[in-house]
Amino acid sequence: MTDKLKISTHLGYFGAGGDRYNTAGYQTAVPARERILLAGKMQGLGGVELNYPALVTEETIEPTKATLAEAGLVVSSVSMNVWGAGKWGLGSLTHPDAAIRADAIALMQRGMQVAKAVGSSMVSFWPGQDGFDYPFQVDYRDQVDWFVEGLREVANSDPSMRICLEYKPKEPRTHSLLDTAARTLWLIGKVNCDNVGVLLDVGHALFAYENVAQSAALLQREGLLYLLHFNDNYGEWDWDMIPGTLRFWEMLELIFWLRETGYDGWNSIDISMPRGDPFTGGQLAVRNIERLYRLTAKLDRDTILANLRKVEQTTNLTLLSDTVFSALGV
Amino acid sequence: MTDKLKISTHLGYFGAGGDRYNTAGYQTAVPARERILLAGKMQGLGGVELNYPALVTEETIEPTKATLAEAGLVVSSVSMNVWGAGKWGLGSLTHPDAAIRADAIALMQRGMQVAKAVGSSMVSFWPGQDGFDYPFQVDYRDQVDWFVEGLREVANSDPSMRICLEYKPKEPRTHSLLDTAARTLWLIGKVNCDNVGVLLDVGHALFAYENVAQSAALLQREGLLYLLHFNDNYGEWDWDMIPGTLRFWEMLELIFWLRETGYDGWNSIDISMPRGDPFTGGQLAVRNIERLYRLTAKLDRDTILANLRKVEQTTNLTLLSDTVFSALGV
Amino acid sequence: MTDKLKISTHLGYFGAGGDRYNTAGYQTAVPARERILLAGKMQGLGGVELNYPALVTEETIEPTKATLAEAGLVVSSVSMNVWGAGKWGLGSLTHPDAAIRADAIALMQRGMQVAKAVGSSMVSFWPGQDGFDYPFQVDYRDQVDWFVEGLREVANSDPSMRICLEYKPKEPRTHSLLDTAARTLWLIGKVNCDNVGVLLDVGHALFAYENVAQSAALLQREGLLYLLHFNDNYGEWDWDMIPGTLRFWEMLELIFWLRETGYDGWNSIDISMPRGDPFTGGQLAVRNIERLYRLTAKLDRDTILANLRKVEQTTNLTLLSDTVFSALGV
Amino acid sequence: MTDKLKISTHLGYFGAGGDRYNTAGYQTAVPARERILLAGKMQGLGGVELNYPALVTEETIEPTKATLAEAGLVVSSVSMNVWGAGKWGLGSLTHPDAAIRADAIALMQRGMQVAKAVGSSMVSFWPGQDGFDYPFQVDYRDQVDWFVEGLREVANSDPSMRICLEYKPKEPRTHSLLDTAARTLWLIGKVNCDNVGVLLDVGHALFAYENVAQSAALLQREGLLYLLHFNDNYGEWDWDMIPGTLRFWEMLELIFWLRETGYDGWNSIDISMPRGDPFTGGQLAVRNIERLYRLTAKLDRDTILANLRKVEQTTNLTLLSDTVFSALGV
Repeated sequence: MTDKLKISTHLGYFGAGGDRYNTAGYQTAVPARERILLAGKMQGLGGVELNYPALVTEETIEPTKATLAEAGLVVSSVSMNVWGAGKWGLGSLTHPDAAIRADAIALMQRGMQVAKAVGSSMVSFWPGQDGFDYPFQVDYRDQVDWFVEGLREVANSDPSMRICLEYKPKEPRTHSLLDTAARTLWLIGKVNCDNVGVLLDVGHALFAYENVAQSAALLQREGLLYLLHFNDNYGEWDWDMIPGTLRFWEMLELIFWLRETGYDGWNSIDISMPRGDPFTGGQLAVRNIERLYRLTAKLDRDTILANLRKVEQTTNLTLLSDTVFSALGV
Repeated sequence: MTDKLKISTHLGYFGAGGDRYNTAGYQTAVPARERILLAGKMQGLGGVELNYPALVTEETIEPTKATLAEAGLVVSSVSMNVWGAGKWGLGSLTHPDAAIRADAIALMQRGMQVAKAVGSSMVSFWPGQDGFDYPFQVDYRDQVDWFVEGLREVANSDPSMRICLEYKPKEPRTHSLLDTAARTLWLIGKVNCDNVGVLLDVGHALFAYENVAQSAALLQREGLLYLLHFNDNYGEWDWDMIPGTLRFWEMLELIFWLRETGYDGWNSIDISMPRGDPFTGGQLAVRNIERLYRLTAKLDRDTILANLRKVEQTTNLTLLSDTVFSALGV
Repeated sequence: MTDKLKISTHLGYFGAGGDRYNTAGYQTAVPARERILLAGKMQGLGGVELNYPALVTEETIEPTKATLAEAGLVVSSVSMNVWGAGKWGLGSLTHPDAAIRADAIALMQRGMQVAKAVGSSMVSFWPGQDGFDYPFQVDYRDQVDWFVEGLREVANSDPSMRICLEYKPKEPRTHSLLDTAARTLWLIGKVNCDNVGVLLDVGHALFAYENVAQSAALLQREGLLYLLHFNDNYGEWDWDMIPGTLRFWEMLELIFWLRETGYDGWNSIDISMPRGDPFTGGQLAVRNIERLYRLTAKLDRDTILANLRKVEQTTNLTLLSDTVFSALGV
Repeated sequence: MTDKLKISTHLGYFGAGGDRYNTAGYQTAVPARERILLAGKMQGLGGVELNYPALVTEETIEPTKATLAEAGLVVSSVSMNVWGAGKWGLGSLTHPDAAIRADAIALMQRGMQVAKAVGSSMVSFWPGQDGFDYPFQVDYRDQVDWFVEGLREVANSDPSMRICLEYKPKEPRTHSLLDTAARTLWLIGKVNCDNVGVLLDVGHALFAYENVAQSAALLQREGLLYLLHFNDNYGEWDWDMIPGTLRFWEMLELIFWLRETGYDGWNSIDISMPRGDPFTGGQLAVRNIERLYRLTAKLDRDTILANLRKVEQTTNLTLLSDTVFSALGV
């Protein structure tokens, strides 16, 4: 993270917020154009994540660009939607039906060109439907083969575009193929293309019981941290809560390491707001990231780093408590 | 459980199976009448659970009764749907708005009469939206007051009807008010009406890290086990899987204790089938319950019970392995 | 919580810190007398929790009192150790052997008198070995009967002493009988003695997936919150970490509700320090509690309470972010 | 897995079974020689796992070999104990103190020679103390560097010996460095030595929320599955329960895939028996593995494999229920 913090937002939380108990949702869905304009009103926001083909398609490139210009925003990345329709229920690149696998490849290839056309050099790919639910349901070896081959084909089709893989341990399947940062690194090694990296979704890492600062630091060490999604949760499910409303110290540690390793990509908001005002929630998310980022600037970086190599390992905990609570006047 | 096993089914899994990523779902939704007729074709099934007002209303009492007669099924209970529409997003009996709380009470009072009209003396109430998501979001004391008062009003409005409370630790809220068997027992003590009991959903108990046999045995000890929902999961989320496809020994222990304590209520199927054939899934659920029930009849009840009071506590594990695997010829 | 914050500490973390991989531990165990003297040097500390018979017995009452006087500390409560020896492996009040059950009752009765003799009117009882590990291992009904009867006998033997029950979902058994706040409330109702209440261990509540502020508020509502244990964890295990080093907002909410409901009991430190300096860890724990307590004094109580009854439920999140981060100058 | 099933056992559960609440344990510890002789009496057992230096050292090679001959057992592997003493509290290969890191390397080098001397060509390495507890405690990049370099040095010191890495998500540290199968594969890629593979501990995989059959199948696909540890748990902690007493279908699926991929290594028992008879527990573990192995021989392999490639994915669930319950006569 450099001095200019790049914050963008996903636009899904301006939708109706439906779930399996109430697919009609709890909110009035905002149309795509208005979502972008609302995002444009958020202080501190510089970009939006679009979704192909849900929010932008080949047909809507020009009006989308116009709306973006009107809102004063750029596109941070475009999500490849190979999960939000019934046909993807058993997977995208690893669907048991070869025709669906081919469709997934084709959709991503088209989506990359749409992303380029709206001004982004990066697409994200969350293989959310790729995995399994029950024992004795899939051949685990096939899934790896299909995933690696399919992704390689997508990546090779346009080396000028970067593809970031979003891992998540589960949901909607009981077990995702791309479940953890380590699994993603292992599979990227097999794909072996220079334009494939990682989207680190903070909440996904937390509910995979990763320390998210560790995941960020190791991904940076490999040069593979392409994008961040910020949200929060209790560590057991992907609640997509407003970042910084639960995890304070861990979020601070994450941002400390992003700074330390020189991360200069986008920090995107990926929250869910079925029961609160989406604009308020998004704005608070942006503010909390900015605030935690500024707070890391107040930390005694050299002492913290030196303490990490000590055998006595509670020194930093005292230092952090002293720094933060003293600043709070308590 | 007596010798005649009463199995019924919930009909939700004949819907589209939408979730938050794909609200349109993965299946073609089956109309209410056809759901009942399909259930009528399941071998071993005697009843269905209806949902008020999603599957039966004041206006559809007579046609519903006709369809039930055609299918050869009775109504095991009727679910009070105070969760599946946007207005219930922040709760039913504990909604912060008193008008919504009143609506929830009124809906349940109407639903009880519809249940009676279709031949059931029991309604179920899952306060799925009652709870909270974030810290500093609700006054925890208000929620208890509102829940107890509201439920008492509902229960007192028709003492001839039984109301069973379905607890669940979370989802869709991050924290449910009615989270565990013990919380339910504690709140029922406060409501203090003779017609309020418990719906034990096996999967909900499992993902609350309860031993479901313990929950059943203790609820029976209090005379408060009114209804069972069968499904399965890995212990960390409410996946609503086909019962008996994951948990073998724990399901066997549950049924052992249901038999032992003389449970003679309904055993209802409450699964989700977004990615498989609903009829096949439902039929397998019924079969697995029947099979596990018959298997408990093969167990050496007296020895098992005697072993429970011994200090050496692995005796039953050997006995069960010997019994089951010997019968399997392995 | 009133204006004078009463903080005490458990003394277990001055031991060797052994675990199942290394029973000899990672630290040099400090003798009982020195533990008390060390505690006496912690700024902000007013009391210690003793353990009967591990740290105080009938034979050591007078020297213990002298050491306490020397250290300038009082006894906040005495733990009844019916779990830390091989004989308790299958339980205390619910052990399958009636002789062991009787021993547990007798130990607690003696311990209550020792507690009184060292100046405390409260003992704590953690039934950590009472529960089960495998399916088909215990008769769940017996355990409830034995627990209720045994506890009633203990409580009635000296109504001038208060007994607080410490619940915990698991460990060392896979399932504890006394697993949650709600279970404890339910069982206290059965015991029906005026001198039985609850010890809320913050970490136990967190890894039972309780919101600990809710548990505190509801226990206070019943007049049953006798004692608090402070520590921290990630929500999935009882790591006994230094309070306030992980959970910031939830800890703040807990203390907000303790203040709001007028809790004036002891706030005891219950941490584990196998890999750090125990004194430093304990002192940081005391400081973090004091600091969070002072921080709650800076919150706009009236607005927060008013917001809890609103339908728009993100207001407090923004207010808290604004208050805390503004005070931090970020 | 070939037709001759090779089953061995770890000997730790013949110890006292101490834990952090009761380091003295719940059992009478059996001396090393008697543990081996007891194992020799278990039907179906062919080997034992020794622990260097806890159960075998340079000084006890000859008597150990004599005892093994007397018991009719071979050594399946030797565990490198770089975790069971206070000095390893902050890690072995990743300890912040370079001198301790060097000690860990040296211990493993000596242990490999002792293993060879007692007739085993394989050692196992569980870096159980390598990881961290709190945020801001370690430099995550150092840990990877130190682990990879140290392990490479150990592996290169004797290429005739195989080293298998045992991953585990946590305990005793809140976060282990070597947490999952995928992390292990990723790190093995960095170590890049032909004699480094994986020890798949079934319980560790389960409580990392892996499907253990998937982990086994993928490790076999890479040619890196060197050893298996069998035990069982509820999916949230490493309870080291008797295998086959909880997870029936998942254990069956694991053994199905071991067979399918031609695994011919050792299947070792790694359980904990603080509250039951160790010999009975070990014998039941052996029997359950044998029984599940024989049960997989009754499954319709060709149909199961064909079903894995189908779009309708509940077919195998019905087939398995029909096969197993029909054989049970229910």
